[in-house]
Amino acid sequence: MEIDMIKAGIIGATGYAGGELVRILAAHPDVEIKWYGSRSYIDQKYADVYRNMFEIVEDVCRDDNLEELAEQVDVIFTATPQGFCASVMNDNILSKVKIVDLSADFRIKDVNVYEKWYGITHPSPQYIGEAVYGLCEINREEVKKARLVANPGCYTTCSILTAYPLVKEGLIDADTLIIDAKSGTSGAGRGAKVPNLYCEVNENIKAYGVASHRHTPEIEEQLGYAAGRPLTLSFTPHLVPMNRGILVTAYAKLREVSREDGSQGLPSYEQIKAAYDHYYSKEKFVRVLERGVCPETKWVEGSNYVDIGFVIDERTGRIVMMGALDNLVKGAAGQAVQNMNLMFGLPEDAGLGLIPMFP
Amino acid sequence: MEIDMIKAGIIGATGYAGGELVRILAAHPDVEIKWYGSRSYIDQKYADVYRNMFEIVEDVCRDDNLEELAEQVDVIFTATPQGFCASVMNDNILSKVKIVDLSADFRIKDVNVYEKWYGITHPSPQYIGEAVYGLCEINREEVKKARLVANPGCYTTCSILTAYPLVKEGLIDADTLIIDAKSGTSGAGRGAKVPNLYCEVNENIKAYGVASHRHTPEIEEQLGYAAGRPLTLSFTPHLVPMNRGILVTAYAKLREVSREDGSQGLPSYEQIKAAYDHYYSKEKFVRVLERGVCPETKWVEGSNYVDIGFVIDERTGRIVMMGALDNLVKGAAGQAVQNMNLMFGLPEDAGLGLIPMFP
Amino acid sequence: MEIDMIKAGIIGATGYAGGELVRILAAHPDVEIKWYGSRSYIDQKYADVYRNMFEIVEDVCRDDNLEELAEQVDVIFTATPQGFCASVMNDNILSKVKIVDLSADFRIKDVNVYEKWYGITHPSPQYIGEAVYGLCEINREEVKKARLVANPGCYTTCSILTAYPLVKEGLIDADTLIIDAKSGTSGAGRGAKVPNLYCEVNENIKAYGVASHRHTPEIEEQLGYAAGRPLTLSFTPHLVPMNRGILVTAYAKLREVSREDGSQGLPSYEQIKAAYDHYYSKEKFVRVLERGVCPETKWVEGSNYVDIGFVIDERTGRIVMMGALDNLVKGAAGQAVQNMNLMFGLPEDAGLGLIPMFP
Amino acid sequence: MEIDMIKAGIIGATGYAGGELVRILAAHPDVEIKWYGSRSYIDQKYADVYRNMFEIVEDVCRDDNLEELAEQVDVIFTATPQGFCASVMNDNILSKVKIVDLSADFRIKDVNVYEKWYGITHPSPQYIGEAVYGLCEINREEVKKARLVANPGCYTTCSILTAYPLVKEGLIDADTLIIDAKSGTSGAGRGAKVPNLYCEVNENIKAYGVASHRHTPEIEEQLGYAAGRPLTLSFTPHLVPMNRGILVTAYAKLREVSREDGSQGLPSYEQIKAAYDHYYSKEKFVRVLERGVCPETKWVEGSNYVDIGFVIDERTGRIVMMGALDNLVKGAAGQAVQNMNLMFGLPEDAGLGLIPMFP
Repeated sequence: MEIDMIKAGIIGATGYAGGELVRILAAHPDVEIKWYGSRSYIDQKYADVYRNMFEIVEDVCRDDNLEELAEQVDVIFTATPQGFCASVMNDNILSKVKIVDLSADFRIKDVNVYEKWYGITHPSPQYIGEAVYGLCEINREEVKKARLVANPGCYTTCSILTAYPLVKEGLIDADTLIIDAKSGTSGAGRGAKVPNLYCEVNENIKAYGVASHRHTPEIEEQLGYAAGRPLTLSFTPHLVPMNRGILVTAYAKLREVSREDGSQGLPSYEQIKAAYDHYYSKEKFVRVLERGVCPETKWVEGSNYVDIGFVIDERTGRIVMMGALDNLVKGAAGQAVQNMNLMFGLPEDAGLGLIPMFP
Repeated sequence: MEIDMIKAGIIGATGYAGGELVRILAAHPDVEIKWYGSRSYIDQKYADVYRNMFEIVEDVCRDDNLEELAEQVDVIFTATPQGFCASVMNDNILSKVKIVDLSADFRIKDVNVYEKWYGITHPSPQYIGEAVYGLCEINREEVKKARLVANPGCYTTCSILTAYPLVKEGLIDADTLIIDAKSGTSGAGRGAKVPNLYCEVNENIKAYGVASHRHTPEIEEQLGYAAGRPLTLSFTPHLVPMNRGILVTAYAKLREVSREDGSQGLPSYEQIKAAYDHYYSKEKFVRVLERGVCPETKWVEGSNYVDIGFVIDERTGRIVMMGALDNLVKGAAGQAVQNMNLMFGLPEDAGLGLIPMFP
Repeated sequence: MEIDMIKAGIIGATGYAGGELVRILAAHPDVEIKWYGSRSYIDQKYADVYRNMFEIVEDVCRDDNLEELAEQVDVIFTATPQGFCASVMNDNILSKVKIVDLSADFRIKDVNVYEKWYGITHPSPQYIGEAVYGLCEINREEVKKARLVANPGCYTTCSILTAYPLVKEGLIDADTLIIDAKSGTSGAGRGAKVPNLYCEVNENIKAYGVASHRHTPEIEEQLGYAAGRPLTLSFTPHLVPMNRGILVTAYAKLREVSREDGSQGLPSYEQIKAAYDHYYSKEKFVRVLERGVCPETKWVEGSNYVDIGFVIDERTGRIVMMGALDNLVKGAAGQAVQNMNLMFGLPEDAGLGLIPMFP
Repeated sequence: MEIDMIKAGIIGATGYAGGELVRILAAHPDVEIKWYGSRSYIDQKYADVYRNMFEIVEDVCRDDNLEELAEQVDVIFTATPQGFCASVMNDNILSKVKIVDLSADFRIKDVNVYEKWYGITHPSPQYIGEAVYGLCEINREEVKKARLVANPGCYTTCSILTAYPLVKEGLIDADTLIIDAKSGTSGAGRGAKVPNLYCEVNENIKAYGVASHRHTPEIEEQLGYAAGRPLTLSFTPHLVPMNRGILVTAYAKLREVSREDGSQGLPSYEQIKAAYDHYYSKEKFVRVLERGVCPETKWVEGSNYVDIGFVIDERTGRIVMMGALDNLVKGAAGQAVQNMNLMFGLPEDAGLGLIPMFP
């Protein structure tokens, strides 16, 4: 082990997102994991909780002591329930280590919006201002300078990246945006609850959190920045009988533009494609698919890619935008590592050369 | 076997919808199946194709000879690819037996619309006029008198029933209707194609037929009747890794109405609920769920029910309507039997007392 | 509702087996359910726990009071954890109602064996003697006269029926019997435990309870009766990512017999088939498949059938016996109703005309 | 791209095993893929067939021309149906490139056994002698020197590695060996066949190829070498509703040994464990699990590991051995790359640092 490896601590290492962080960081050439935090499994071998890690990880799980951890590591990932990270944050910690928070605590700039949607009092609103929303493709330069990164949610990453170029370029009427999202079950976490039992999820699909899901204000805020004004949109998540993957199907009215031939009308395929390419052609982790190809979650499974496709519906004047990602990778742990790479000046894709697994 | 049992023939008895017809009719107290048509398996034992029917069905599969069949049975179900039923239909057949066509051949009144979306020339447009669109809850009286019933599509049954009361009552702006539908894989049929292989579907979700799926004009036509004017809407189907079930999530702008307190504004929960109840409270097979309950496909599996729920989103002024059914029962074979019951003067639910199976 | 309907009470009505009892009894022509016992959901609407029952069951859940229940009903089904039924059993109850116990409390005649494998003290061993082991195909006459039926386990029903004729007829060396069983996840119950979460079961298969599963002594006892002497055998259950179904693959050495041509040797296909037919050809719910056909759990899903097939392996001198059933029907609730039918003099298949659902 | 990268060609690159070879080799630090052979998709972009490879693989598919390929590459992987590799093999090719054949053509030393079980005439039996059976953990030194490696089957790799130490050390009576194997559906290949459709496999389990599966003689031959004499055993494969993974549950009578205390009797846990450790403690890709832990396919998914566990059943005198691997990795492509690494003098685990993915 070289002296200048980045030392990482993970709080919440035995949740699904935490487990995925371990999977990715264990193979990262520049990182060594020094702390597997898991309040539920203190002193138990990590590999006894996740046996895929047998003979790969030898450490035991440890408590969630951020103060102590800050002395030992260079970066802390908090893959914890809402409210935890904010409740333990302080100047001392921030002065010593970089933080990538996978919870929602620092994602929303307006603390009132946070408190309304999450139903809790924010314990440390003073850090919201400096926290950088870690959607690397959009906030890359800010992330590079950040001490505290708010890693975006899984639905939000997929929703924002799918719609961002068209909102930003004014090609769609953002007030008509409707996002219908479908997620694999790992997004529900590893808590033992009846609705997440195999027999309840298998052979079943349902919507949930209709008109009330907490990722809504996060999407609205970020796409609002793109639009240059506050937005209100519809977001509906669905639970799908599969382990991993999020598919977003987003609908919006197209705005009339000057067409190539000088007439006013709906934008052409080429104009839409050009907008996506403008923002994403150089982005390694965003793949804008070829004409007519709809993304499938299976094509990105296990990888940090987001696949995006779209279809213009001339009959209705709407566009159907589609995006797919792995909720545990680009939707959580992969993006967290991407953020860490930026924060430490590493190549952005270090440790993220994960090729999607099929079938 | 009593003398006055209804004799039924099934063309396409070895497809998934045909198989479901056999399952339902085999337990129907007033029907005996006399003809298991399956061009692919002629002279093979039906129970060798569907071994669930071992020791239950002893017959062999037979050819698709409608003329001969018309001599022997009282009702013919055609669970066949588009174009077949229309290509063999004639006055002689119609004078002898009742027909329930599970294909799309006679669903769309405007033959030009049919030919455009299906890409085939309609072989017998002269029968389109008399064909009754067999959505029992809406066209019950016409079905009772029909010789030829066009059994609705799976997506369309779910989509129409979910939105119908609100379109009919003018509670939503029908031009803003967006239908995002999710289907189990049996809807894709039993054809041996790579995209329907287990490993391609499992752990995967995708949209398909975006802005071009053939059920679109069928939904538009029927909801257009409800609206009293032609409609154009967005319809996007998705393939879900499960055998059975369709979930429809439909979005529309609510129209302002006179509220209970005399003010103008969005309709209240009670007003929307009353509209649904007005049309469905006496319908056995449509269950309008209680406040806040979202339908799940698993709760209707194996049964002829459609479950409907909705959420008003005050923030966006939209309503989210949700409907769930079993695509092979209420979306195909069950509805076909419901139509047959009506055509023969039987109790509408005869043979359809199927209790949903969970888990 | 007729006066002479059988009144039934279910204790444990909100477990998966209890829910299946409700599904079957709700459609049973001779039964009305009077009591939905569920300690976890007292006073909640049953249909709020199992929404498939919306508008079908209107009752609320009630406590587990057997004394009170005995006053009100004719038969009680106990679908409860081990130890419950035995702990509340007494002469008063048995004098008033018939009991079908779906737990293991009265299945094993030797109380020491029960206490050793289950690790609990049997609270009422005095009733073990009169309890009839409710495997209808084998103990039919005893069941008819019973007050207390011990409904067999899911694995055991499948294992015993698969091997019974060959053990009974001495065609296999019972000491070589190895039973490798595979079960869907509903067999694990509806308890909220991490190992039963969707993401833990999906895309996974494992053995569990190796050399220690509690169904082992039950199989040994019953097949021991068939063999006429005590048996010891190997039984290994596996958890399969599906909701329903048990498949048993059983291996044993064939014993030499007099062949049709007078020589000594392995039994022929016809001899084995004749043994199965001897016991099962008149059994409605046991289907001995045609030569070369291997049972599949999907072909019996939702029904009370057991499908059985076998292959003679000349190379090894072994036979591979295979059996499939739906663990919640023939493996639990369906068999319980079959027992009730026998106990009350009803047709054995009353309410059990469930046709397997495919796909 | 460095000058001394190993150039690889893949024949059958669009099957599931071929696709997995591409996934692994695309990330292998010492290999570049020069030829994506696929007779079905000639001139189509490889990434149009497997869209997970979009923007990762830019090449098109090419014909199966081994002669031409031998001029261009250093190693050829043949992931092709039985008979293909043997039908094109010749001295010229073998003199120019190394071959790793993923088919069964050169796995079985006795050509009569091959022809009997596979039902085809072996087209080039003259190469059977020099072919090395590529089970690296057992034939490592031979593989290093080989020109032609017969890559083992998926079931066989799992079966052999699970039982090998105990057969080799004489701790079990090999004549009593019964192997009950369960496989994910990718093992059935990507051919469009009805039995492999989603709806036929999902919610279903079945045995197939009972007493006749072609992997049987391969297991018998290799374990026969370990036993020092020919063996006959029972092998039964099952199809499980999951994409990847094989679980083997193997049963055998334990032989009496001298116990630690000098007595004769069944071997102790420690003695069995010592046997496994003797062969595997230094093997990176074989993980002998801790006492009481049963392997699960999910814990090895996507990786080259085989996990092995066992339970001694004192009651029956048998041992239950269990092994789990990913059929597309250690059961096919991963092992092929492991063989290639040995043949080219690379670190055996080069490109195989794949961490199992969970969930």
